[in-house]
Amino acid sequence: MAPFITKFEPYEPEEYVVDKKNGTKSPARLEKIAIVGSGSWGTALARVAALNAAGREGFDPEVRIWVREHEVPGRGKLTEIFNRTHQNERYLPNVDLPENLVAVPSLKETVRNASLILIVVPHQYLPGILEELKEPGLISSRARAISAIKGVEVVIQKDEQGNSSTAEIHTYPSVIEKELGIPCTALGGANIALDVGRGEFCETTIGVPSAKDAALWHAVFDGPTFRVHPIEDVAGVSLSGALKNVVALAAGFVDGMGLGGNTKAAILRIGLLEMSTFTLEFFPGSSPLTFSHHSAGVADLITTSFGGRNRKCAEAFIKSKPQYSGGKSFEQLEKELLNGQKLQGTLTSREVFEFLEAQGRLEGYPLFEKVYRIAFEEMDPKRLFEDL
Amino acid sequence: MAPFITKFEPYEPEEYVVDKKNGTKSPARLEKIAIVGSGSWGTALARVAALNAAGREGFDPEVRIWVREHEVPGRGKLTEIFNRTHQNERYLPNVDLPENLVAVPSLKETVRNASLILIVVPHQYLPGILEELKEPGLISSRARAISAIKGVEVVIQKDEQGNSSTAEIHTYPSVIEKELGIPCTALGGANIALDVGRGEFCETTIGVPSAKDAALWHAVFDGPTFRVHPIEDVAGVSLSGALKNVVALAAGFVDGMGLGGNTKAAILRIGLLEMSTFTLEFFPGSSPLTFSHHSAGVADLITTSFGGRNRKCAEAFIKSKPQYSGGKSFEQLEKELLNGQKLQGTLTSREVFEFLEAQGRLEGYPLFEKVYRIAFEEMDPKRLFEDL
Repeated sequence: MAPFITKFEPYEPEEYVVDKKNGTKSPARLEKIAIVGSGSWGTALARVAALNAAGREGFDPEVRIWVREHEVPGRGKLTEIFNRTHQNERYLPNVDLPENLVAVPSLKETVRNASLILIVVPHQYLPGILEELKEPGLISSRARAISAIKGVEVVIQKDEQGNSSTAEIHTYPSVIEKELGIPCTALGGANIALDVGRGEFCETTIGVPSAKDAALWHAVFDGPTFRVHPIEDVAGVSLSGALKNVVALAAGFVDGMGLGGNTKAAILRIGLLEMSTFTLEFFPGSSPLTFSHHSAGVADLITTSFGGRNRKCAEAFIKSKPQYSGGKSFEQLEKELLNGQKLQGTLTSREVFEFLEAQGRLEGYPLFEKVYRIAFEEMDPKRLFEDL
Repeated sequence: MAPFITKFEPYEPEEYVVDKKNGTKSPARLEKIAIVGSGSWGTALARVAALNAAGREGFDPEVRIWVREHEVPGRGKLTEIFNRTHQNERYLPNVDLPENLVAVPSLKETVRNASLILIVVPHQYLPGILEELKEPGLISSRARAISAIKGVEVVIQKDEQGNSSTAEIHTYPSVIEKELGIPCTALGGANIALDVGRGEFCETTIGVPSAKDAALWHAVFDGPTFRVHPIEDVAGVSLSGALKNVVALAAGFVDGMGLGGNTKAAILRIGLLEMSTFTLEFFPGSSPLTFSHHSAGVADLITTSFGGRNRKCAEAFIKSKPQYSGGKSFEQLEKELLNGQKLQGTLTSREVFEFLEAQGRLEGYPLFEKVYRIAFEEMDPKRLFEDL
């Protein structure tokens, strides 16, 4: 219905070899999928990819997922438990995973010979992972990546007096593309991992650098209950995934103050406009339609602001404050509430704030500014609505 | 932030008279507000208008609200109770209303001499009300109206064989404008009446026929916690208010089936696109920004789909069906759950369905079609996601 959806031909193997004995033909090469990251979202996506790989011509059915090894007291090694039970008990409990999804303790062995690499890790871990993946010869120059990382990379260069002088912002697909030298797609929402794990109907937008990426990643992830829509806006999809978590913090503040649906809807509307305006200001090739029309925009924001972990912690943050001061920090709440998962919104909030401050552009983004000040500078949350 | 917001000068009285004795000047005429309708939304808006009228130069502080008279057993007449307690106990309980908001049992006396008339009634009651208001001389030709009615008027002319031949659709502001001969603005959401009654922060979009209407209605309703944004799209604001209730039924079906936030967000995204596409197809002067950027679009849809009465009844409708068949009708549920309030979404769903069917355009609106068939033709609600 919306314009600028990427046109592509459905995936087919490029070349076939014919068996001279019996005349059957088979693909010359198999696409091989690797999943870097085994949190709840990584595992949910791995499940979808492994189900597709098992049934689709041209794909190696074995999908590898990197699981950091450790000993589970009394039960053995985590990867062995994963491969025996076909469950990720900690991060995606009660969801049966396909048997062709194989946990591998070594990052390098996970990606070796892979042609399609999904990177889905908390953004604070990415630099170390990319360092390891850059080993010469490990990743084929014909491979492709897709990033489901929620966040942005902000680089602020200070001058000699310690004042900020220049500020840069990069999306993770562009960082991955630059570091690994392979094209990188952005995978957006709207998705709460557990619901995807249960196979409930949902939609996902992918921002693709080419029609070939559209066809391949569509083949990896699309299915009757997981609809994949490729669009031509890699930066927009990536930015939306990062910035929506900042707005979700504001939604959580609204919930924490006990305010109703009108207030929350107003905050979401204003937040969606700031997300779109920010992206168009700093990534001028992006499209406002990514935010207003596509699942990675408006739908992901809604899902996250009603059901996500940033909302949850932000609500608890406000409720921990008698008279809206004192109370718990987000670091404490992350430990208490998230069972080892990481909070992305607060980190993104800080990075976006520092970037806008260095750019002298805070006044254009009153909601982003206030979320930061409430989260980190003890601003009274009732001031969230000023100047909006 | 978005374009096509109406530019206007803040309201000021047009003429003053000077008291020759002491030199003080005062407005030559006072704007007088009348509220036609005293349901929960009408009462919440009346409260906002009365608070503003009490403090704003150029306005008669007395705001009249039409309350259908009846005897409350053991307590006297309803209008007298309203004017004594300053509460609308049935439809907006526990909210104190300003003393300058006066309940009047006669519709004609409510609007006589009014210059600003808010019409906020269930759309099934409008024809009778307009008939009464059309009495010659009752409404000044200088008066202006604003409609907060959620619905559309569909007129289907059948040919001699009983097949439909022509179908027309009209918005209520255009019906009111035609019947009463005065300009009519559309008032949109996002608003749940009770939250507005409690003075929580929210936003409202008004679609205005002129900058003068923008200034006047902004003066009537805008305040620190009730932000009014005038835009130049009367039909879009009115259509959004009607069609969002159809999407909210779909959201309620999702809730009733026990599906999660991803599914609901996908339905909301697709529903918002159908709302926008429908409006642009049949009201080509409208703007897609009304839906994607403004409170009357995306924010009202979110509020309604999480907290409104259509969602609530639609959830109960599904839950009343063992194996998704049989169960209660919407008529029953309206009586059981809404305490005398009316359900607008089912009526609008039927009207929109009949209009699209007569136009031969059902295939362009699969979500609208399915909502109707689930609500009225026993379609299995699990089929909601087909062909979307």
